[in-house]
Amino acid sequence: MAYRKTPAEIGRLEAAREHLVASATAVVAEVGWAQASVTAVAAAAGIAAGSVYQHFPSKAALAVEVFRRAAGREVEVLGQVLHEPGDPVERLARGVEVCARRALENRGLAYALLAAPAEPAVGAERLDFRRRYRALYAEVVREGIAAGRLPAQNAEITAAVLTGAIGEALVDPLADPDPDGTGQLLADLTAAALRCAGAPTP
Amino acid sequence: MAYRKTPAEIGRLEAAREHLVASATAVVAEVGWAQASVTAVAAAAGIAAGSVYQHFPSKAALAVEVFRRAAGREVEVLGQVLHEPGDPVERLARGVEVCARRALENRGLAYALLAAPAEPAVGAERLDFRRRYRALYAEVVREGIAAGRLPAQNAEITAAVLTGAIGEALVDPLADPDPDGTGQLLADLTAAALRCAGAPTP
Repeated sequence: MAYRKTPAEIGRLEAAREHLVASATAVVAEVGWAQASVTAVAAAAGIAAGSVYQHFPSKAALAVEVFRRAAGREVEVLGQVLHEPGDPVERLARGVEVCARRALENRGLAYALLAAPAEPAVGAERLDFRRRYRALYAEVVREGIAAGRLPAQNAEITAAVLTGAIGEALVDPLADPDPDGTGQLLADLTAAALRCAGAPTP
Repeated sequence: MAYRKTPAEIGRLEAAREHLVASATAVVAEVGWAQASVTAVAAAAGIAAGSVYQHFPSKAALAVEVFRRAAGREVEVLGQVLHEPGDPVERLARGVEVCARRALENRGLAYALLAAPAEPAVGAERLDFRRRYRALYAEVVREGIAAGRLPAQNAEITAAVLTGAIGEALVDPLADPDPDGTGQLLADLTAAALRCAGAPTP
C-alpha cells in the first residue's frame, strides 16, 4: 500500500506553506522581486533554503504565488466596493479611491504588484491582474451609462484608461520613500478618473 | 604601443552591431522577449551565436539596447507631434492618435514595448520609457491650461492617466492576431484621452 500523508501531516505542510508565502510576501514588499532570493525568503521564514523547494519547484513559482495572493486580495476589494448598492458614479469614484489608498498604505507591496521589474512569469500574472481590473471597471461604467449617469462611450476603453491610470499615476509616489500630499493625490486621481468616464464634475 | 583599431575596423564593428540590433528587434517583434534567444537572434543576423557576445555582454544587455532604440523612436515621434505649433488640445489628440496608430501598425514590437513579459532589465527600461511619455504629456496639458483650453487640473496626474491609458487600452488589441475596428478603437481612445484632460467634447 502506498504511503499516504495523515491529515495532521497535510495540515502541517499547508501551514508551513502559508507561512512561507506570507514571509515571501513581506520580503518582496521590502526589497522587490529581484532581491527576494530564495535565501532571503527562507531566512525570513526561519527555514533552510532547501525547504523552500518542498513547497515550490522554483523561485519563479513562489513569486507567482505571492503575486496571485496579493493581487487577488486587491481585485476582491475592488469588486466589493464596485458591487455595493448605490449610484454607479459614486461607486466608481470610491473604487478608484480605495484602490489608490490601499496602495499608498502598503507601498512596497503595491509597487511590486504594479511596476517593479520582475521575472517574466510575474509579468504574465500582472497582465492577467490588470485584465481583471478592467473587467470590473467596465461593468460599473456600463451600469453608469445604462442609468443615464454617464454619457455613451466605449466602456472597455474607459475601463482600460482607469486601470492604466491608477497604475501609472501611483508609480512615482509609491517609489518615493517620503511622499507628502497623499490626500491631494487621491483627490486628483479620483477627479481625473471621473473626467475620463465623462461624469459630471462635482 | 597598444593595438588600436583602424577607422575601417571601427566602422565594420559598428555596422555589424547595427545589423545585430536590427535583427534582434525583428525577432523580438515576431516572438517576444522570452523566445528571442541569443541563438535565434544570431540566426536572424546570419552570424554565429558566439559573435553576439562581441557586441553585447549578455542577452539582457542586447534586449535593453533593442528596447531603448525602439522606445526612443516612439518618444521622439510623440515629442515632434506634441511640439508642433498650434492648439494644445489638438496636439494632444493628435499625439494620442499617432502613438496608438503607430503601435497598431507595428503590433509585435509595440506589444513587446508595452506589455510582453520580459527580463527585469527590460522592465526597468519600461518604467523609464513611460516616465518620458508622462513628461511630454504633462507639458502639453500645462500649455492647454495656460491657454485656457483645458480646465485647471493636476497636469502630472492627467499625463500619467494618458500614458497608462494608451498602454492599457492597446494590450488586448495588440495581442489579437486578427483585430477589426482599428479606426473605431483610435477614435474611442482619443475621445477618452480628451475627456480625461477635461477638453470640451467635440
